This record gives sequence, C-alpha cells and structure tokens, in this order.
Amino acid sequence: MTDNSSSVFDLAPLAAASHGGNNDPRLPKPRYVGCPQNASRMPYTKYIAYDKQVPFEYPQRTWPDKKLQRAPRWCSVDLRDGNQSLVNPMDSERKLRFWNLLVSMGYKEIEVGFPSASETDYDFIRMLIERELIPDDVTIAVLTQAREHLIRKTYEALRGCKRAIVHFYNSTSVLQREVVFRKGKDGIKQLAVDAAKLCKELEAEELAGAGRGIDISYEYSPESFTGTEPAYALEVCDAVTDIIQPTPEHPMIINIPATVEMTTPNVFADQIEFLDQNLARRDSIVLSLHPHNDEGMAVAATELALLAGADRVEGCLFGNGERTGNVDLCTVGLNLLVQGIDPQIDFSNLHEVRKVVEYCNQIRLSERHPYIGNFVFTAFSGSHQDAIKKGMEARELAAAQQNADLDSFLWQVPYLPIDPKDVGGTYEAVIRVNSQSGKGGMAYLLKVNHNLDLPKRLQVEFDKVVQRYADETKREVKDEDIWRLFKDEYLPAEEAGKHAALADTDTAAGAGEGAPLGVNGQRLEQWGRYRLLGANIMSDESGSDTVIKVKIQDNGASAAGAAGAATGSAGSVRTGAKDPVVRTLSGVGNGPIAAFVNAISVLGVTVSVLDYAEHALSAGGDAVAASYVECQVGDEPETQIIWGVGIDSSITTSSLKAILSAVNRTLR
Amino acid sequence: MTDNSSSVFDLAPLAAASHGGNNDPRLPKPRYVGCPQNASRMPYTKYIAYDKQVPFEYPQRTWPDKKLQRAPRWCSVDLRDGNQSLVNPMDSERKLRFWNLLVSMGYKEIEVGFPSASETDYDFIRMLIERELIPDDVTIAVLTQAREHLIRKTYEALRGCKRAIVHFYNSTSVLQREVVFRKGKDGIKQLAVDAAKLCKELEAEELAGAGRGIDISYEYSPESFTGTEPAYALEVCDAVTDIIQPTPEHPMIINIPATVEMTTPNVFADQIEFLDQNLARRDSIVLSLHPHNDEGMAVAATELALLAGADRVEGCLFGNGERTGNVDLCTVGLNLLVQGIDPQIDFSNLHEVRKVVEYCNQIRLSERHPYIGNFVFTAFSGSHQDAIKKGMEARELAAAQQNADLDSFLWQVPYLPIDPKDVGGTYEAVIRVNSQSGKGGMAYLLKVNHNLDLPKRLQVEFDKVVQRYADETKREVKDEDIWRLFKDEYLPAEEAGKHAALADTDTAAGAGEGAPLGVNGQRLEQWGRYRLLGANIMSDESGSDTVIKVKIQDNGASAAGAAGAATGSAGSVRTGAKDPVVRTLSGVGNGPIAAFVNAISVLGVTVSVLDYAEHALSAGGDAVAASYVECQVGDEPETQIIWGVGIDSSITTSSLKAILSAVNRTLR
Repeated sequence: MTDNSSSVFDLAPLAAASHGGNNDPRLPKPRYVGCPQNASRMPYTKYIAYDKQVPFEYPQRTWPDKKLQRAPRWCSVDLRDGNQSLVNPMDSERKLRFWNLLVSMGYKEIEVGFPSASETDYDFIRMLIERELIPDDVTIAVLTQAREHLIRKTYEALRGCKRAIVHFYNSTSVLQREVVFRKGKDGIKQLAVDAAKLCKELEAEELAGAGRGIDISYEYSPESFTGTEPAYALEVCDAVTDIIQPTPEHPMIINIPATVEMTTPNVFADQIEFLDQNLARRDSIVLSLHPHNDEGMAVAATELALLAGADRVEGCLFGNGERTGNVDLCTVGLNLLVQGIDPQIDFSNLHEVRKVVEYCNQIRLSERHPYIGNFVFTAFSGSHQDAIKKGMEARELAAAQQNADLDSFLWQVPYLPIDPKDVGGTYEAVIRVNSQSGKGGMAYLLKVNHNLDLPKRLQVEFDKVVQRYADETKREVKDEDIWRLFKDEYLPAEEAGKHAALADTDTAAGAGEGAPLGVNGQRLEQWGRYRLLGANIMSDESGSDTVIKVKIQDNGASAAGAAGAATGSAGSVRTGAKDPVVRTLSGVGNGPIAAFVNAISVLGVTVSVLDYAEHALSAGGDAVAASYVECQVGDEPETQIIWGVGIDSSITTSSLKAILSAVNRTLR
Repeated sequence: MTDNSSSVFDLAPLAAASHGGNNDPRLPKPRYVGCPQNASRMPYTKYIAYDKQVPFEYPQRTWPDKKLQRAPRWCSVDLRDGNQSLVNPMDSERKLRFWNLLVSMGYKEIEVGFPSASETDYDFIRMLIERELIPDDVTIAVLTQAREHLIRKTYEALRGCKRAIVHFYNSTSVLQREVVFRKGKDGIKQLAVDAAKLCKELEAEELAGAGRGIDISYEYSPESFTGTEPAYALEVCDAVTDIIQPTPEHPMIINIPATVEMTTPNVFADQIEFLDQNLARRDSIVLSLHPHNDEGMAVAATELALLAGADRVEGCLFGNGERTGNVDLCTVGLNLLVQGIDPQIDFSNLHEVRKVVEYCNQIRLSERHPYIGNFVFTAFSGSHQDAIKKGMEARELAAAQQNADLDSFLWQVPYLPIDPKDVGGTYEAVIRVNSQSGKGGMAYLLKVNHNLDLPKRLQVEFDKVVQRYADETKREVKDEDIWRLFKDEYLPAEEAGKHAALADTDTAAGAGEGAPLGVNGQRLEQWGRYRLLGANIMSDESGSDTVIKVKIQDNGASAAGAAGAATGSAGSVRTGAKDPVVRTLSGVGNGPIAAFVNAISVLGVTVSVLDYAEHALSAGGDAVAASYVECQVGDEPETQIIWGVGIDSSITTSSLKAILSAVNRTLR
C-alpha cells in the first residue's frame, strides 16, 4: 500500500454487520404471509453489496427507453481470451481452423493472441502474416502488457502486417490497486499513460524502420473495470486518449471489460452511459465492451450496454473464455436477428460452427445452450407441441394468402423464437414425445413422418396407448415407437407388407417383423380376427344403391389377440392358431360403407359409422389413401365407440379396411 | 379467428420492410469509421422487433434505482417444468431423490407435477402424501389446465395432503389467441375466469367431502405472458383474483411466465413494475416470476424483475427446463450471496447438488456454468494467477490484522467473485498452468503443493523452463509436471530420496525414479556433477571466521548432464558414467556460505552469491529448510547469473546444496 490510506478490507466489519437474513428488522416486510423460508448457513456476511464496493449513481440514465437498432462492431477474442482459458490451448492446426471459421462467418476484427507472452501465439501470428492469410478487410488485434520489451516483441510479431490493433491494458480496480500493484490512483493512471507513451514512441521507431507500412490502431482497456470507480476509469481513459490523440478518421478503441461480472446488468449499462456521455474525444473513440459471465448475465449486460451507447463487443463463440467465459457472440448476434436486425454475421450453418468450436476448444456445449443446444428447439409438452403444430399451419396459410415465400415469411410460431432452419437446423427435433407429452406431439410425428393426419378424437384415443407405453417404459417415445404402436393398434396384418421399408427400421423391442412367414408368405404373427382379401362394389345406374361382395379371411376367435395386445409387446407372435377360413359376404346400402356394414352383419358384428375422414398419403396418381372411421360397434347396451384405420391404394378399400380395423379392435 | 380482425401475420410486410442492414440510411450513422462489416445473408426481415409485436412503454419506471435487498420466495419447478423437458423423464426413484435434495437445500415450495396429465406424476404425488414425505413447512404445487375432469383428478391426487398450491393457467399471447385458441381477448379472459370459478366450486365440493382439511392456495399464470399486451394480462389477472378473492392473510400467487424470452430484460422489468403498480388486490397477491432462457438472459430478467417488485421466483436448479431451460435458481441464489444477501437456500455442498441433479436429469452441466462448472474457478492466465496469489495473501494478512476468523472474513480476491469453499469446493482447481500462463501459476502451485516459496527472480528463471515445456507439449502443465521439471532443474540427485513419497505419484513421462540404484544405494541416474555428502562447520569463539570442511562427490564431467537436460525427458538415465570420486575440501569465510564458496574454488569454480532466501518447508522441530541462492558463477567475462536450490533438514546444509545446485546448472 502506498498513497491509499484505506483498504478494501476496511469493509469487512460493514459486510459482517449487513443484513440479518429473513428476519432482519431493517428489511422491508414481505407483502405476503406464509413464506416459511429460513435463514441459511451460507456465509453471506463475508460478501458485500456491489454498490458498497463501487459506489455509483446515474439517475439521469436514458438507456431503458432505447431499443437495439443495429449490429455492433464485433471482435472475436476466441484465439486469445478463449484460447488462454483452455486446459489444452489450441495448437496451430486448431487455431488456423478457428481463424478460418471466424473469417468465413464475417468477423472483421479478430484478437489473435498475446505474442509477447506465448511462443505459440507469436508463431501463429507470423504464419497468418507470412502466408498472407489475413483478408484485406480483416484486422487482427494483439494483446500486450505495457512494458517495453513486450511491446517491442509485439511489434516484431506484426512485421509485414498491413493493419493491426495493438491492445494494451492495465488493471484499475480498487482491489488490484491495493493488493496486486500496491499503487494509488495516480500511480495506476501513470502506468496507463506511460504505456500509451511507450506505444507511440515504439510505433514511431518501428514505422521508421522495419515496421513501415503497418496501419496501427490502439485499444486500451482499464482492466477489472467492474471493480473500478467509473469516474476514475474515465480519468484514466481520458489520460490515455490524451497521449494517443485519436481522431474521428483514425479513432482508438476504449474497451470496457467486465473482467469479473459483479452486478446486475443495469448497473453496467449505467456505467457505460456515463462513459459514453463523459469521455473526452468521444467522436474519436470506439466504445467497446468485454463482458464476462460470472453471474450468468453477460449477454444481458452486453445488450443493455449497447442500449447505453457502446459501439463494439468483444466476446467468444458460444461464450468460451476465462472461468464462466466471455459473452457469447452467437447468442447476442441471434438475439439481434430475432428482433429483425441483421447481425452482419453468418449464423446460417450454426451446427457446423458448433462442431468446429467444440473440436478446437475441446469443450462440449450444454444441451440447453441458446439457439444451438440439442434440446433448445424441442417441445416435449403436449400443449406446446399442439401449439407449435397449429402455429406452423397458420403461418403456412398466411404466407399462402399473402402469396409470400414461406422461407422468408414472418416467423410467428409459439414456443419457437427462431426458425430452426435459419441456423441450419431442421424441424426433426422440434417434437419429441415422452411420458409428459400429450397427443399433440404424437399427432405431429405421425403427420410429418408418416403423412397420417389423425382426426382429433382419434388422437385422443391413440394418445392413451402412447401414454400407457410412455408411463411403462419411462423413456422418450421415439417416432419409430409411435409408428409401431400405431400399426399394432390400428393396422394389424393389413399393413405389414406395405410399410415394410419403414418397419424394417424398427429396432426397438418386439416389433415382430422378424417373425416367421406363413405358408403363403403372409406374416401370420399379427393379431386381428378379420382381414379383407377383396371387394367387388357394384353401384346401379341410379346410384341409389350399392351392392358389395367381399372376401374376408376369419382367423378365428383365438386371433382376436387379447393376450398379445399389451403395449410393449406389440405385434406379438401368434402361435397355435387354427387355419384361417375365407368367407364371401354380400351386402347392400346407399354407399359402399353402408353396404359393407350390412354385409358383415352376418358375422354377428353390428357396426354404425359415426364419423369418417380420408386423405391421400402422398401426391400423384398412384396415391395411397388413409381412412379413419369412428364406429359404434356392438348391440345395445354393450356398444363401444372406437376408431379404425385403413390404408389402401383404393379409397374405397381403405375405408372398408378401416371398419374391419375398428371391429377387430373391439374383439381384441 | 373470431373477434380479432387483425392477424399477427399482418406484420409480415412491416418486418420485410424494416431495416436495410448496415447501409440502411434510416439508421444512425456509426460514430466511428472503418467498420467493414457487411450485411449478412441471414433472413432478418423474417423477424420483427419485440416492441412492434407487443407495444409497451413504461417511462415512469423506478426499478433501475433499486438494489436487491432480500431473497425472494423460491419455488422449484424441477419436478414439473424441468422433468417434462427431459428426453427421459425421471422415474419415481429419481424424482424422490430430487425431492429430498430440494427439501434439504431449504426450498419450501416445490411444484411436483401435472397429476391430471401424467400417471407417473400422479403416483409420485400420492407417494409423497401417503408416505408422509412432505415436511410441515413445505408446500407442494401442482399444475393443471382449467378443465373440469383435470381439476377433479388434481384434487383427487391431493387427497390427504395438508396444504397445496393449485396452479392453473391459460395462454394469453396475441399469437396463441389467434393460432391456437382462435378466440379474441374476451374469450381468452373468459377461459381464465371460468377456470377460477371451476376451481372455487370444486374446492368447495372437495373440502366438503373427501378433500376436507387441505389448505388450498391458488396460483394463476397468464401463460406466454411475454407475447401478451401487459395491459391485457393485467385485465385477465384482475378478473381471476376477482373470482378467487385472495386476502392479505390468504394471498394467491400471480405468476408471470416469460414462457419464451423475447426481449432484453429491462423490458420485462418494466412490465413487472407495471403489474406491481397496477394489479388490483396487490396486498393479497404474491407476484411471481417464471422466466425462460431463450435469449440467454433469464438470470438477468429475474434479477431486474425482482428490483421491479416481484416477490417470488420459479425456476430449476442449474437452469433445467423446456428448451433453453428455466431460470437457474442456483445462479440467482448465489448472485444474492455475493451481494451479501442470505439466499435462504443452502448451497454449501453445491458439488453434491450437481451430482444429484446430473444423475436425475441425465444432462451434464457445461464446464463454464456459473459457480459450479469445472473451469469457473480456474485461472490459466499468468497475470490472473499472480493477482489471485497476492489477493489471497493480502486477505490472510488483513484478517490476521483485524484478528478475524479467515473463513468468514470479507472475501476480496481478484478474479474470484466467490470463495470456492463456500460452495463446497477447494482451491485446487484455482490455478492451472498451460502454455498461456505466466510464472504466477507455477509459483502458486509450488507454494501450495510443495511449500516452496520461490523468490521473484527465480520464478522468472524457472518460468522459462515451464513455458518451454508447455509450448512443446501444447498441453496443460499439471502440478506433477511442474514438480518434476523443478526437481530436475534444481534438485538433481539430492532430493530423490527425500521426496520419494511425492515422486512416486509422478506417473508422467520419465521422472526417473524407476531407474536402478547404484552400489551404495544412491540413485545414480540424476545429472549433476557435484553432490554434497557432508559438511563440518566450525566457527571460532569471536564469530568472525567460519571454517568449513566438506565432502563432495564428483561424478565427473560426463555427469554434467547437458544431453539429458531437455524438457520432456527430465531426469534422464545416465549411462556409462565413470565411478564417482569423493573429495574433501576446506575453506574459510565470514560465514558458512563464504567459507563454502572459498572451499569449492579449488574445483575451478568461481561463485559469488548475489541473493539469498531461505524458509522452513513445514512447521515443527524436524522442519526441513529450502534455500534459494542467486549466484554469479564463472570468471569474467564469461559469468552467468543463475539460481540454485537446496533442501535439507539443516538450514546450513540446504544453503550449501543450493550453491552446488547453481554450480551444477552452469555446467549442464
């Protein structure tokens, strides 16, 4: 300690005396009764409120009334701050790969290292320069402490470079002044001023000599700014710009690091607005941010500080960097995008970006990382799934009505703040089904993956099957599980052949496709008593009556399949069945369905059709149709309301199969 | 669509016309020249600014002048929102484990599920009630949609419970009104009112019957609030409380979900302050937050909204939950702690909490997760390490000066916003060394793990050895690597025996401890020409002169070890060496060091000692001493300034060994 007579540790008694927990009489009373939380054993008196450490008020703030309007100037510090925070810093192969990624995304300022402190960094910078890997519109920045031999080495590293930012810093916080540098305010300011002078001197020397031709800009950081009195930081920055003498045509960067995030982001924004309003030579300064994420609010601190007047943001892709990381440039950029602002960075292939970053940093992103985590576009909740499905449909309709291109049409979909496609994703992960999901997700998957558009009440019915399966297995119900359950429930026997290709992908438990074939090549393992073999439909000229003749295979009561109907053993192998009997039946009605219902009544089955829907499974002349019928089956008082599904290339046959599906299900 | 004549998609042309990118003449000119960022190909016209979607101004805000003062009422929704977002929702074993964890940490309100929608949830709630697992001061909450059969099933699930919160919700956003519910504002409000009425009716019915004795509270959420006009949300909430009729003694919870995070957190805070100031029956309402993290700002949104008047926070441990997750209750809680506020939750064993949460959710946390990620207390940068070391020392000193207990003494350490011990961690991970680190980290590790407190210039010297190793291996330099490098560099031969216990843990390349023993049991594999075998020091009575007699083993020029000195092959085995020669030498000086220097001069070695430091390696009578000497070795003009280190139970012998260490190093 020198010219500071007080110590940060003088606050200790204040901290120890502050706040007495829940029952502290000095605190405002809670406005509700019955909150039974107890004081914890956490040593909170060991810490002291930020405003006690760094007193600062800025009631004249205007930033809360502002809106984000444009992308800031971005600077990636992945190769410097990001790199130095890695257990295993990048080798030159990884560094170069990261460099190429940043350039390809559109970053124009890239801090590439600390060449005076690390040989690897030095060599990398030399490689960039000597192999001419720096595009004309990209500027590299290099960090250095402000000491003569380090600055000399820094300039040496830059030789032959067209343009560069020399970034020098010193720590200005109350704490570091006291415990690390043991200097007072004037002494610390002098360090910054001396550094600036040294830079200018060495620049002149270098430019006169071997460095000739480098267009040098400067960047100064009052490091550990968040622990620094803002008025003092202002004083130091002004002293630095007084030496560097930037101009509007050749500005310098004043970079404000939240080296450690110590407060709510509104306070940081107040500080930035204070600097923005009070910095000398403001028109010659690029006011820059370098937020860290210790309290998990770096993205917010960045955005509020941009409202407060900052021009530039330093950060890393996906928030790599010392400790909790630097601010995540991807999240801030995409937050701008979803406000309708061009981020001026290409995130269209974010999944590839993620791969490269994970490879280079050797750190895996969280499943919940904004915009890119594996789960962030996934809705498991049924109501969310239902809303997404409806939202997608409404958007498609609106785009069609406005005659607009869907891909670029206004994105308004519940629970999805961004179109996953805009960051190189798909809709595949959007709907996943687990035991917490309702019918929406299952219906969505059947529609998207199998073109089946189930009527609402059928969704409710089938949802019970899916839910039972989910509750029993306690696992995610994957698309193939849903499809297997659906086939077993509604399409016994009928569809095994038609959907073989899909069925073959069923590797989950007991799909039954591996079961032995019967003598005629038909799979006999399916449950389901009745099977339609053929139908002949004759309408008379007047169209008033339809006569039907159908061939139905009766597999006998033992094939009703009650035993094999349990979920989880869907498509169970039928053993010991009797030989099937083929029956030819006839009926009459005002249409094929009525005629068919009439025909099968001789089997002792009473059916009336309550609702009916049908659609093509695909476009084209050879389209296959799906039919859904809601039937009342059985005689009063023992009737059952039940759905059946049929799929066939003939729309008539598919509806007849649907009725038999319902009948079979009542017998199950 | 019914009584709303406009559509959210009417905004499409507005979005498409908004902002022309970097060169849009409507935008303010940047205040700096030379920002070469280009317009990207990102489809930003597909999105529209939040304030265009949900126009709202609240210039009378007062929250930015407020400070956080106390913990909010916490509600964990891990077992509901968190659980429903998992690929594999928790089975009852996991759920119970999570429940026990939450209770043990001090959470008093826990949302346990959606019993009317999931059998697993229903069964879990029944288990909690029937096995009497709910402590008297803990209240469970259950979520339900407001439909009669669902509410009935919810009450059924609660039978026998002493106290519960019934949480009902409906979605109120512009988008969901239009595309999901196809109702106007009045219709949606009516849904909420009908739900509230139904709750009251069924409550009366239940309480009169089997549910008698349950103390029911209500919670209502205008779901998708962030997409809702705040004035309309207010209207709906007021309509609900008008039915429920809460009182200050029996308040209800109005829970404001940022179902999708859509804007900067200051706007959310404005909205909350608006509600706080305008809600009817405010004194009977617990104003609650349920923020999600789509834009990575949920923690900030929560803290700013607490400033704005919210009383309660719903979230999940470590931010699990749908998509990007709910707000992270641990981060918000610990952010309060570091402001000197009791979080009223026990985070003292956060590492154990993490294990349980990762087990239950089957999701791994990120390495950079605030307060708990593996890297968040780690400093790789040399200047950070140096500052941490100094900060720790200054704090120890200040605590001693104030006669205070160190564990509870004010925490002020650069780059470490929290004492890792306060969340159950250690200081072990704080300093790790890689090729980006300076001398600070290495010095810290040698001090903490080996009790060696290297003088500053020795740190600079040894740092070159570590840096060379780091640059060559491109990997983290672990403590054992540093120790191995140090022993090889400064303690050849001498220390192999003494530090055997430590040395045995060296599993990294070539530490040499496995090499064969010589005939006399000494390890001969070390490089280093001279070795001190014994010393006899005689001071005369006057104390003016010291006479020394030493036995020195000379392993010959071939043992100087130049070939084996490369980093990475430290402690290389010496082969083909000649038999050592033992010499007895005498010298005189004004102290043992001077006498020793005099004695070894007959070996042709000229040494003068420039600096000297010594300290005990451990407390106690049998303490071992470490000596560090900075020597000028050799004759002009070919002198070298070099350090030597000696360790011995005799403080005199250790200093003599240190001199021989320096001599050996010059010969290497």
